Amino acid sequence: MMQNRDAGDTPVTVIGLGLMGQALAGAFLRNGYPTTVWNRTAAKAEHLVTQGARLADSAGDAVAASPLVVVCVSDYDAVHGLLDPLGEVLDGRVLVNLTSGTSQGARETAEWAARRGATYLDGAILAIPAGIGTADAAILYSGPRSVFDLHESTLRSLGAGTTYLGGDHGLSSLYDVAMLSLMWNILNGFLQGAALLGAAGVEATTFTPLANKGIETVNGWLAAYAQQIDDGAYPALDSTIDTHVAAMEHLIHESEFLGVNAELPRFIKALTGQAVADGHGGSGYAAVIEQLRKPSGR
Amino acid sequence: MMQNRDAGDTPVTVIGLGLMGQALAGAFLRNGYPTTVWNRTAAKAEHLVTQGARLADSAGDAVAASPLVVVCVSDYDAVHGLLDPLGEVLDGRVLVNLTSGTSQGARETAEWAARRGATYLDGAILAIPAGIGTADAAILYSGPRSVFDLHESTLRSLGAGTTYLGGDHGLSSLYDVAMLSLMWNILNGFLQGAALLGAAGVEATTFTPLANKGIETVNGWLAAYAQQIDDGAYPALDSTIDTHVAAMEHLIHESEFLGVNAELPRFIKALTGQAVADGHGGSGYAAVIEQLRKPSGR
Repeated sequence: MMQNRDAGDTPVTVIGLGLMGQALAGAFLRNGYPTTVWNRTAAKAEHLVTQGARLADSAGDAVAASPLVVVCVSDYDAVHGLLDPLGEVLDGRVLVNLTSGTSQGARETAEWAARRGATYLDGAILAIPAGIGTADAAILYSGPRSVFDLHESTLRSLGAGTTYLGGDHGLSSLYDVAMLSLMWNILNGFLQGAALLGAAGVEATTFTPLANKGIETVNGWLAAYAQQIDDGAYPALDSTIDTHVAAMEHLIHESEFLGVNAELPRFIKALTGQAVADGHGGSGYAAVIEQLRKPSGR
Repeated sequence: MMQNRDAGDTPVTVIGLGLMGQALAGAFLRNGYPTTVWNRTAAKAEHLVTQGARLADSAGDAVAASPLVVVCVSDYDAVHGLLDPLGEVLDGRVLVNLTSGTSQGARETAEWAARRGATYLDGAILAIPAGIGTADAAILYSGPRSVFDLHESTLRSLGAGTTYLGGDHGLSSLYDVAMLSLMWNILNGFLQGAALLGAAGVEATTFTPLANKGIETVNGWLAAYAQQIDDGAYPALDSTIDTHVAAMEHLIHESEFLGVNAELPRFIKALTGQAVADGHGGSGYAAVIEQLRKPSGR
C-alpha cells in the first residue's frame, strides 16, 4: 500500500547511520519529514535524536514505521543481512536502496523486494555526506517511474540533483561507475599534467587555472562526440586520430625526459593505436569508443 | 633590432601555410597587420593573397620583410630545414615558433636563434584552425618576458587566450602535452562511460548532460587538489583512496559483466593500488601524484 502524501508529511525511515546515512536522515529532518532511524550501533543515532528523529527498537520496527524506507549501508550483503530476516513487514513498503553496488545486485534486490511485496528504487549518491541536501548533491534513481514520481518531492530534499534514469533497476549503479570512471580519468589527467610540469618547476596551483579552462573547453565538445557515437560515424571535425597519436609521442617523450611516470601516456597511446590499426587513423577521437566496447582478457 | 610599434602597424611574416598557418595569417590580416607569407608550395598562399597578404619570393625574403616572424610548420626539423640556410637575415628578428615539439627542442632552438642574433619565443596552440582569432583560442608562449610584452597586442590577435608562461622556452611545449594529456584522459573517461552505458542500452547523448555536470563538479575540486600537491600533504577531504579502490572494483566488475573493455579501469585500479601499497590508503586522491612522479620502465 503506497500512500500519496504531501512533501514534508510522508514519514520516512533511514536504516544505516554511517556518515552518509546520518546526512540523509539530517536532510529529511531539516525538511520537516517525520524521520525514524535505525543503526546496528544505536550510538550513531544520538545526534539525530536530538534533532527530532525517532530511534526504532529494531530494523523491523524501523521498516514498519514509514511507507518510505531508505537504506544506506556498506554493501548489498549488509542490506540483505538486515532485511532478509524481517518477513512480512516489508509488504507494501517502498524500499529505496542508496547502498553502493553493482547493477546486477540492484536487479536481484529488486526481484527479492518484489517477492516480499515491496516496491524498489535503486539509487546512487554522487556526493559526499556534507553535500547531501544541497544544490551540489546529485542522486540518481532507477526503478518504476510511478514510484519515483510519487516520492520525488520527498527524495528531492536529499539533493537538488535528484535524477530519474529509467525503469531498469541496474541503471543507477551503472551510471555511478560511469561517472566515477570519468572522475578518476579527469583526476589522473590533472595529476599527470601536474607531475610533468612539477618536474620542470611549475607549481600545481599555477597549472590549475589553465587546466580548469581546458577542461571547460573539452566538456563543451562532448555533446558532438556523443552524437557521433549514437550515429556510429566519426568524421574528424578537428584533429584526426593519426594527429593525436603523433602528439601522444611527444607526451611520452617529455615524461621520459623529465623522469616522470610514462605508463599512463603509453596506455593512452596503445589504446589509440588500436583504433589506428582498425582503420580509424583518419577518424575523429570518438572512434576510440569502438576499442572500449570490445571485451578484454583478464 | 626590435621595433616597438602600435598594434595593427607591426609588419608580420607567417612561414608555413598548412591549415593552421593559413588561419594565423588570416587572423593577422583581419586585424590589419601588414602580412607577408611564405610556403614551400606557393599555391597555399593564393587565398591569403586575395585577402591582402604579400607572398614572399623565398623564405629569406619572408624573414627580411618583418621584425616579427611566426613559423608554423610540421615539426622542428622542418623549422631548421627552412631557417638554417638563411644566414644573417635572422639577425635582429623576433622569431615566434608555433610548431608543435618538445621542450628540449624549444630550448635548443632558442639557443640556435640566439647564435643567429634573433630573439625567440616558443608557443603552443591549444586550438583548431577554425578557432584562431576567436575567444576560444588559447595560445601559450614562453621565452623572454620583455619580447612577449613588446608583441603581446600583435600576438593577441591570434586568440583571446594568449598566455605568457615564463622565461624557460620549454614551458609552452610542456604545458601543451600536459593539456593534451588532460584532454585525452577526459575523452577516454567519457568514452569508457558511454561504452559501459551503451552496453545497457543507454545512448551517449543521454549520458552527456550528466557527464557535463559531473565534469564541471570535478573541475571545481582541482584548486584544492593542487594546493595539497604544492603543500605535499593529502588529507582525505572527502573519500579516502581505500574507498576509491573499492569503487574501482565495481567499475571493473560492471565492465566485465557487460562485456566491454576493462583495461582502462584495471589500469586505474593498479595505479591507485600502488598509492595504497605506499601507505596512502587513508589519504585523499591527490596522493596518487606521488606514483605519477616516479620514473617508469619502458
